Amino acid sequence: MKPSTKTRVPEALARLPGQPVAAIDTPSLVIDLDPMRRNLMRMAEFARKHRVRWRPHAKMHKSTALARLQLQSGAVGVCVQKTAEAEAMAAGGITDIFISNEVIAPHKLARVAALAHELAAAHGQLAIAVDSTEGVTRLAQAMNEARRQHGAPAVINVFVEIDVGQGRCGVAPGGPALALVHEVRNHAALRFAGLQAYHGAAQHLRSPEHRREAIARVVEHVLDTRALIERQGIAVELVTGAGTGSMVCEAASGVFGELQAGSFLFMDADYARNERDPAQPVFEHALFVKTQVISAAADHAVCDAGHKSHAIDSGLPRVVGWPGGELAFANGGDEHGILRPIAADRKLPAVGDVLWLVPGHCDPTVNLHDYMIAVAGGLHGGTVERIVRVDARGALT
Amino acid sequence: MKPSTKTRVPEALARLPGQPVAAIDTPSLVIDLDPMRRNLMRMAEFARKHRVRWRPHAKMHKSTALARLQLQSGAVGVCVQKTAEAEAMAAGGITDIFISNEVIAPHKLARVAALAHELAAAHGQLAIAVDSTEGVTRLAQAMNEARRQHGAPAVINVFVEIDVGQGRCGVAPGGPALALVHEVRNHAALRFAGLQAYHGAAQHLRSPEHRREAIARVVEHVLDTRALIERQGIAVELVTGAGTGSMVCEAASGVFGELQAGSFLFMDADYARNERDPAQPVFEHALFVKTQVISAAADHAVCDAGHKSHAIDSGLPRVVGWPGGELAFANGGDEHGILRPIAADRKLPAVGDVLWLVPGHCDPTVNLHDYMIAVAGGLHGGTVERIVRVDARGALT
Repeated sequence: MKPSTKTRVPEALARLPGQPVAAIDTPSLVIDLDPMRRNLMRMAEFARKHRVRWRPHAKMHKSTALARLQLQSGAVGVCVQKTAEAEAMAAGGITDIFISNEVIAPHKLARVAALAHELAAAHGQLAIAVDSTEGVTRLAQAMNEARRQHGAPAVINVFVEIDVGQGRCGVAPGGPALALVHEVRNHAALRFAGLQAYHGAAQHLRSPEHRREAIARVVEHVLDTRALIERQGIAVELVTGAGTGSMVCEAASGVFGELQAGSFLFMDADYARNERDPAQPVFEHALFVKTQVISAAADHAVCDAGHKSHAIDSGLPRVVGWPGGELAFANGGDEHGILRPIAADRKLPAVGDVLWLVPGHCDPTVNLHDYMIAVAGGLHGGTVERIVRVDARGALT
Repeated sequence: MKPSTKTRVPEALARLPGQPVAAIDTPSLVIDLDPMRRNLMRMAEFARKHRVRWRPHAKMHKSTALARLQLQSGAVGVCVQKTAEAEAMAAGGITDIFISNEVIAPHKLARVAALAHELAAAHGQLAIAVDSTEGVTRLAQAMNEARRQHGAPAVINVFVEIDVGQGRCGVAPGGPALALVHEVRNHAALRFAGLQAYHGAAQHLRSPEHRREAIARVVEHVLDTRALIERQGIAVELVTGAGTGSMVCEAASGVFGELQAGSFLFMDADYARNERDPAQPVFEHALFVKTQVISAAADHAVCDAGHKSHAIDSGLPRVVGWPGGELAFANGGDEHGILRPIAADRKLPAVGDVLWLVPGHCDPTVNLHDYMIAVAGGLHGGTVERIVRVDARGALT
């Protein structure tokens, strides 16, 4: 296992545990542990009920502590998108990791192959997605090179990713996918482990009907492709995919054996804009930016959280819990948020007032922060329980 | 001076200096030093010619090494937006710092006051902006507390920020500003240093005429407010403000004594969309994301840079230098960019190809990265000269 490059928690954060929420500086990223634990429990229960494995995406929280918590709750392992994220998870003791993305650079594939051997030595396993001949050939070269250097040659689990409607990565379903499966099976160091079929765009379709329609097409592609592969006498052990938005559809399909949903743990403002499918567990907001008003005028107030504190790719954050009435949050740039009452007769917050924001999108919001501050007992009246390091923050390569 | 919490440069980066650009991993943030140095020289020359001080905004690069380089080129100090940024700059040896933003939390103001004393002891100085009575009163309390604890009581330079049209922070020009000046002057530890008048929205007006009109109104507000203050026998030593978009207007006004422009150093795709004022120096793109194609289909290719590698608040990045013809970059989410040729007959990049992106907005892009890789001799054929640490990355509080 690579040594963890842990830095010491800064002094101002290290003394927070045990202190009241009021002691948390602004802007800070705060986990409300009570709803987070309920989200976790509901996900575990959902997976048990549907007899489906869950391998939450650690690209969302980037924290080895939260990954371990998910494993303790029944997750089979984690997904990541980047080799550096996989290395950070492994450094934190996670031994079952799936890089659910394509890796092409030979020097990165050498790291992938080394990690496959390290995890195998720790009785774990590494998996990766492929969608091109180059990807398969280069991965096999890297694995063969690593196997020559190791006393105990490992294999890597390889999922052929098919494009099921998102138009991003993935080989075309059917014939092209089958051809790639054959290529994977040509290499002794690569073990064909199944199909990855993830439809990112379907996660954010607002109506359950539209999500069901989109995933019905996904399932058709998967069934066709799986049948084609199985007709060659090749087993498709596992189909993996799904996100927080569409997971009830994949779970009900009988085709997907593994769910990759990650955002359910924190829920963000964008996922909350989805109309909930009745089959979906109730997931509550558990990630917040604590912010303070630093300036106020007659018609607006300004808080100290801008888009260096929260990502805005999926919309602006929502202000919650302001007792003076609903507030609209307008983008004030990198370091500021501009607040206006939605109803004209409502009270604006004053200089010094504290506000809580639900970020539009949790994954890139977490990636802006080195630490999250985990609170038990609620945002109002609770206590800081622990500091959660974002171990894979900025792990881009 | 607070001790710097420098972590060691990761091994993979530490061995890059002296190596060719091809050795840089993807996605990485790369500084093209040749245009950056030309930008710096042109800014210094512009300021000299217009007899105006320049205090570049370090919120943009967040690097003490680049701040020192700017000081060596004639900058009088740096601006920052956050107390934690000021502390990071001070830890890197910068002794003339202006927090061009409001600070309200008492525990943060205690840090501001401590820093004012530390910088004064190092023969430097700290300045801060205020726009409310609470801000002035709390700052004075924090300074008085710090003065009691220090053998050599320091003062802090205080700029009254006026809202000159952006509708964000700032007290109203005229009477309200004068009232706040009086409040500042009531406290021995606060030294009224002048006015801050920054119009953020004006920076991105596309036509030079619109920018000139907006800044003409800014100048009117400043002139009125200054006259009102001076009629009370109070000197307004300095008016500070301006950004890369409008700086030629403030410089020509005869009213602004100091320019805060920061983005000129790197120039981003958004500022490049401004029609250049003939009076503006030519600033070249000097900040790039190096990315690699990891997947390709018939009608698109996918690269490994998404909005965890580059901020998208001011638009998507622009692909530059692809020899197959102009490519459109579409958002592929946190970790992917989707590339399509703009003309149908042009060649798509293939799996493994390297592309260069100009980020839409440099400030929040830099804030995503722990390090920037500085290259001399150009992106094609150049050599890595040094690794630049983003010292104040994530310095939010």
